[in-house]
Amino acid sequence: MTLEEIAARLGGRVVGDAATRIRQVGSLESAAAGEITFLSSPKHRSKLAATAASAVIVSEEAESLTSLPRIVCQSPYLYFARVSQLFNPLIAQEAGVHPTAVISSKAKVAKSASIGPGCVVGDDVTIGEGSCLYPRVVVYAGCSLGARVVLHSGVVIGADGFGIAQDEAGRWVKIPQIGAVRIGDDVEIGANTTIDRGALDDTLIEEGVKLDNQIQIGHNCRVGAHTAMAGCVAVAGSADIGRHCTIGAASVILGHLRLADHVHVSAGTVISRSIHKPGTYTGMFPFDDNASWAKNTALVRHLAELAARVRALEEEIKNG
Amino acid sequence: MTLEEIAARLGGRVVGDAATRIRQVGSLESAAAGEITFLSSPKHRSKLAATAASAVIVSEEAESLTSLPRIVCQSPYLYFARVSQLFNPLIAQEAGVHPTAVISSKAKVAKSASIGPGCVVGDDVTIGEGSCLYPRVVVYAGCSLGARVVLHSGVVIGADGFGIAQDEAGRWVKIPQIGAVRIGDDVEIGANTTIDRGALDDTLIEEGVKLDNQIQIGHNCRVGAHTAMAGCVAVAGSADIGRHCTIGAASVILGHLRLADHVHVSAGTVISRSIHKPGTYTGMFPFDDNASWAKNTALVRHLAELAARVRALEEEIKNG
Amino acid sequence: MTLEEIAARLGGRVVGDAATRIRQVGSLESAAAGEITFLSSPKHRSKLAATAASAVIVSEEAESLTSLPRIVCQSPYLYFARVSQLFNPLIAQEAGVHPTAVISSKAKVAKSASIGPGCVVGDDVTIGEGSCLYPRVVVYAGCSLGARVVLHSGVVIGADGFGIAQDEAGRWVKIPQIGAVRIGDDVEIGANTTIDRGALDDTLIEEGVKLDNQIQIGHNCRVGAHTAMAGCVAVAGSADIGRHCTIGAASVILGHLRLADHVHVSAGTVISRSIHKPGTYTGMFPFDDNASWAKNTALVRHLAELAARVRALEEEIKNG
Repeated sequence: MTLEEIAARLGGRVVGDAATRIRQVGSLESAAAGEITFLSSPKHRSKLAATAASAVIVSEEAESLTSLPRIVCQSPYLYFARVSQLFNPLIAQEAGVHPTAVISSKAKVAKSASIGPGCVVGDDVTIGEGSCLYPRVVVYAGCSLGARVVLHSGVVIGADGFGIAQDEAGRWVKIPQIGAVRIGDDVEIGANTTIDRGALDDTLIEEGVKLDNQIQIGHNCRVGAHTAMAGCVAVAGSADIGRHCTIGAASVILGHLRLADHVHVSAGTVISRSIHKPGTYTGMFPFDDNASWAKNTALVRHLAELAARVRALEEEIKNG
Repeated sequence: MTLEEIAARLGGRVVGDAATRIRQVGSLESAAAGEITFLSSPKHRSKLAATAASAVIVSEEAESLTSLPRIVCQSPYLYFARVSQLFNPLIAQEAGVHPTAVISSKAKVAKSASIGPGCVVGDDVTIGEGSCLYPRVVVYAGCSLGARVVLHSGVVIGADGFGIAQDEAGRWVKIPQIGAVRIGDDVEIGANTTIDRGALDDTLIEEGVKLDNQIQIGHNCRVGAHTAMAGCVAVAGSADIGRHCTIGAASVILGHLRLADHVHVSAGTVISRSIHKPGTYTGMFPFDDNASWAKNTALVRHLAELAARVRALEEEIKNG
Repeated sequence: MTLEEIAARLGGRVVGDAATRIRQVGSLESAAAGEITFLSSPKHRSKLAATAASAVIVSEEAESLTSLPRIVCQSPYLYFARVSQLFNPLIAQEAGVHPTAVISSKAKVAKSASIGPGCVVGDDVTIGEGSCLYPRVVVYAGCSLGARVVLHSGVVIGADGFGIAQDEAGRWVKIPQIGAVRIGDDVEIGANTTIDRGALDDTLIEEGVKLDNQIQIGHNCRVGAHTAMAGCVAVAGSADIGRHCTIGAASVILGHLRLADHVHVSAGTVISRSIHKPGTYTGMFPFDDNASWAKNTALVRHLAELAARVRALEEEIKNG
């Protein structure tokens, strides 16, 4: 495919030899001849100078940073995603059910869906058009997946939520989890992620949500449309997360709280109360060399004392 | 079932029409006619006013908050758990071994146990009466499960503990993990949780323990009876956790330490030394909007300096 | 095997009856007659006094702490690992492919490798000599494993990395993940750990790396040779981790940063920027009883104010 043909499909303006032939995408560092790469930020300009790629996707501002044939566009990273999809079609498994998968006779699986080896699909499950379950996915009874949903290996949808009540003797009495999980269209879920069924009502993952690996979504949560979460996020029960949010790796969202649309949570942050305003929120404890950390962190446990001492000094000075 | 029949089985006092017929449980928000709901806290009283449920479970204090037919009892949440069990019996899979499960001929599986599709049960494993392994559970050789143990999909019991010693060249030499995992009666373990076998002695999960999803229990740990852990908790090797503890989501318990009975750890907390007194312990770093966080967190790394400056001021004022 | 025979194979100096017969290893607390145990630190000397073991492995310094037959050596823990390997050979599964495993006809699996029940191995995968996949491991297409690689149950190698770009409407466009995962010789990976394939280039796990359970390694990471990570570590995309590092349980390594060789990260630490110097780094928030925590932690969010007040006091005193 030539640069001209790519731009005809995806837009953008070709600068340099529009007949340059491209057969694959590559990174700045390792792209070879015949490959197109991209510059996401001017800070990588030294890598750009050294690249062996045949062409580059750049923004207006970066247009002059290279003399290679290039496509100029607004969002090089997005453009690159689309070019890569041209060369690397996303369907990874054939449609149909692998013979080692165990599908309930009461499940409804679209003919165009692909169910990998070792998958288990329970009673009354619905799986929509073009959805893909990689090997060893489990969908418990009663859950539903929309169209074009991708579940990576080891995903478990619809296991029981963690609902227990303590009796007089301190033993736990299980609360039957009679809700299900409903997953919208175009959702992708990473390896070994788990989403629990609702206690009474359903757990909801709205359309376009993208979840990375090893995420845990508790019962009765709602994850709003087009929200993305990086790996190892833990979301406790009944959290209601808005649309177009991003949640950084290994963050924790406590239960029974609400995040507005367009809330961005940094990695390693514990969200312990509702957030009503869009914006970026962070709660990472700063790391340090071990000796400095030990010295400073001990004082965290005595901050109230330190504040009291400062107050006393203020009083003393005021009073003369 | 009428309210009268429910109270005859489970106790409590009926107020209003005792002949009210109930066929299912529901949440305050979405219960329909024929359903019973519960009020766990007076702060939900506005939802109570709007509920379409036919009856409510309430505490003595909340008895007058509704005119709906109701059951008055000490612990509405616990009562609700028991009512829900009446309407939703917990056995989710038939007894017997699914034909796609791979069970060692040297394993002893109770006839009343249920082993789901794709499970793998190793040599010399014991699985007690009425236990239920959901699809795709693995139990490594030599481990034992008591009666009525429930393991959700993706659980791995008895993989090798992380025991390695460094040689002179900095390479890791594996320490064979020759202990096993012993799980008591009435334990339930959530999806994709892993419990490692002991290095020498066994890893112990005592009766009535409830573990949520994606928890990791290291080798040689003991989790005391009736302790409950929320999702994504990490427990390092040889931790000894008491009875009737609760551990919040995504907390970390470091290795070789001891938690007394009735210790409660909040979510997102790293427990780095033993706790000998019952109580609630917390170590969550407070989140904030990103700009405030950046400003304050930088100072955490200079707390020792700040404390020194306060001390200097105190000296200066004292001296003069 | 006698102590003399053990020392002939593994080195060390026998003190006491060299003909003492040993048939297994055990812990200080629970070793029985016929077992050999070890003393890793003098702080366990009281347990040593009470042990029922027939022999002990000790360091030069601890030689005189017991009158039991003993082997004196430089590193008792390492020595113990080797003794345990003598009595407990590490091969846990027979060579060959279990009939329930699903192996692509295009995969190359060494004859001496062992592939457990329910494993799924994709197209063009290479698995080296003596490698062992425990039950229910998935290796996606195109990934390669060296010799003597051990993957525990539930491991997923080569699922798609989390590469998404946002379009003008805030929807996510997937970036095809066309790299693979390459794993070196003598790597061991714990249960339910996931390692994502590269976006463009490969994700690299170098020889001798040891990963515990439930670790997540993002796309395009490199984990340097002989690095070890404890359970539940999250490593975001494109992190480049050096050789001979150790990463404590539940730590988080953010993306696109670099850790030098011989960096040691404590448990529960978020690494948010590159580390260029070997050493130990920590960022654990200190836990406390809940009331003390609440009091002190509120002040963390007002540290900048506190620092400003201290500065004001300093000014005031200087000027007056």
